[in-house]
Amino acid sequence: MFGLKLLEERIISQGQVIGDDILKVDMFLNHRIDVELLGKMGEEFHRLFAGRGINKIVTVEASGIGIACITAQYFSVPVVFAKKGAHRNCNDEKYIADVFSFTKNETTTIGISKPYLGPEDKVLIIDDFLADGNACLGLISLCEQAGATVAGIGIAIEKGFQAGRRKLLERGYDLHSLAVIKSIAGGRIEFDDAE
Amino acid sequence: MFGLKLLEERIISQGQVIGDDILKVDMFLNHRIDVELLGKMGEEFHRLFAGRGINKIVTVEASGIGIACITAQYFSVPVVFAKKGAHRNCNDEKYIADVFSFTKNETTTIGISKPYLGPEDKVLIIDDFLADGNACLGLISLCEQAGATVAGIGIAIEKGFQAGRRKLLERGYDLHSLAVIKSIAGGRIEFDDAE
Repeated sequence: MFGLKLLEERIISQGQVIGDDILKVDMFLNHRIDVELLGKMGEEFHRLFAGRGINKIVTVEASGIGIACITAQYFSVPVVFAKKGAHRNCNDEKYIADVFSFTKNETTTIGISKPYLGPEDKVLIIDDFLADGNACLGLISLCEQAGATVAGIGIAIEKGFQAGRRKLLERGYDLHSLAVIKSIAGGRIEFDDAE
Repeated sequence: MFGLKLLEERIISQGQVIGDDILKVDMFLNHRIDVELLGKMGEEFHRLFAGRGINKIVTVEASGIGIACITAQYFSVPVVFAKKGAHRNCNDEKYIADVFSFTKNETTTIGISKPYLGPEDKVLIIDDFLADGNACLGLISLCEQAGATVAGIGIAIEKGFQAGRRKLLERGYDLHSLAVIKSIAGGRIEFDDAE
């Protein structure tokens, strides 16, 4: 398996490395969103996960929503995004999970209202980043609580030097990341093309 | 101008009225996202705002992102979404505005980092809801600070019984809402097709 070269090129040309472990891709993914690039990524996720009976894409607000919606068009399925925190007009019962965010250095509770996820669902989890894997494990937990099947996990950018991949593979999940970063030490971005 | 009938039908069949003023559309727009419906909405926004030289779509996280991304595909332009609150790996200088949320009953600061919006931009503002107009005025303020031109405002669902429309029209903005709700009193949803 190889990464999506287009995405790797974009990370090299427009990504910003901050310190030893933060990669900022606000130019095309997390603040400004290049929907044409997202289209190529969605097409690739479809190629990787087609034929598995996926009937729902699950992600978490906010950065996952764009890539999840554009990918969902290729599968002709709806998206459900987990919400962070509590909300006045959300008084349904929810599935909830606590997620520690490495970037924000805080724990957030994410939730999906029960009517929107259930045992009939074969889910593709989509997210923009995989680092320590906590957001992904939180989404898996919501799916498990709902009795839904996680048919695959599609990540835009994986920090291969953190523990997320190992945690997900240990649990037997089928993970594909479009770009896997081996190292950003010293501000130099190196990819692992051997996924 | 008339609303998008498909959206009105969906609001009737799947919207939930809570109290006298909250309409919850978590089934297709704000939690579960029907990307096929969003495609029809994006197509309609393109029909309404084509030919104005729009080169950027601006929205606010989180619920605006899906509709903005899908609409952006029809215009072949990028999306920039305003972020809420502060964030560890966002240390660029930002344009910021305070927005009072009727639904959450609280004021949030929204911001767009300066590199992502500027005087060269002709912006279509897209959002899921228009009620009192505060989120929209916040986005307009960010555009003004950046020297960008607001070429149009496209709203999925407008609560026509609140003050948003008046505030935006008074300032001369070109506003189109795909569905305008006249009343939800007593749990009965009535549309205003006379926009």
